[in-house]
Amino acid sequence: MNDSSITFSPRGEKSLLEEGNVFMPKFDSETGLIPCIAQDAHSGEILMFAFMNELSLKKSIETGEAHYFSRSRNKLWKKGEQSGHTQRIVELKTDCDQDVVLIRVDTRGAAACHVGYNSCFFRKITALGETPDLTLLTDPSGKQFDPNEVYGKK
Amino acid sequence: MNDSSITFSPRGEKSLLEEGNVFMPKFDSETGLIPCIAQDAHSGEILMFAFMNELSLKKSIETGEAHYFSRSRNKLWKKGEQSGHTQRIVELKTDCDQDVVLIRVDTRGAAACHVGYNSCFFRKITALGETPDLTLLTDPSGKQFDPNEVYGKK
Repeated sequence: MNDSSITFSPRGEKSLLEEGNVFMPKFDSETGLIPCIAQDAHSGEILMFAFMNELSLKKSIETGEAHYFSRSRNKLWKKGEQSGHTQRIVELKTDCDQDVVLIRVDTRGAAACHVGYNSCFFRKITALGETPDLTLLTDPSGKQFDPNEVYGKK
Repeated sequence: MNDSSITFSPRGEKSLLEEGNVFMPKFDSETGLIPCIAQDAHSGEILMFAFMNELSLKKSIETGEAHYFSRSRNKLWKKGEQSGHTQRIVELKTDCDQDVVLIRVDTRGAAACHVGYNSCFFRKITALGETPDLTLLTDPSGKQFDPNEVYGKK
């Protein structure tokens, strides 16, 4: 569980990072983490945002199953290890400066968000512009599961 | 340019953050930044990932135009101020623990990425699974503009 046969290339110069064909992911020099966006491969909905460390990115690539790094628990975290709501990675992309990862995933089980919604982004602010209203409106599609049943009582 | 009439609510307890209707964005205690994902409001494509500080989030909400914080230039950055490729925000969402922002945007002009592609995520790794191949494949749809013409010679 704690090793991998993958070795990432060291970071190259700007032109290679931006337009080259070698994956050179940047892990933050202090935290060792890279941000990761998970997007539903079918609907295009953004499901969640989390961080990966070097090992979780390697595990994600080798197994095709999303692995993150839990900052609150300070450990490798296979998505769905407790809830069963795993994410099979269909495609793994990176951005121009290779300091973010985007995974397009097939989800298994009810939902991505631990609160019970399909996406962690289940709320939006009411109004933008000159008279903004910061009240949050919740996605009317509602909860997909009861967190108390899946994770046990909080 | 450096002030705003918006005041964000202080962070509340977990149940309020996760299921309440008050926007309480979390800015990192060290950097003062919050991650932001920009998604095309029509295609659902993820265009870019960047950070906002408190002022850029307020400006984004008040003006309905995406403002970020440039870490390399250490300043507020209105998206498109140089390229003209601005982003009008259609919807502003946050995630369960309110430490990430998702904006759904209408783009003006050619593209979101400074390298010239429609999305910063124009490359994916070749293969996942037991025989991974970390070579990056570039989106065959190609460049939308020439950065040298838009930004001047590098």
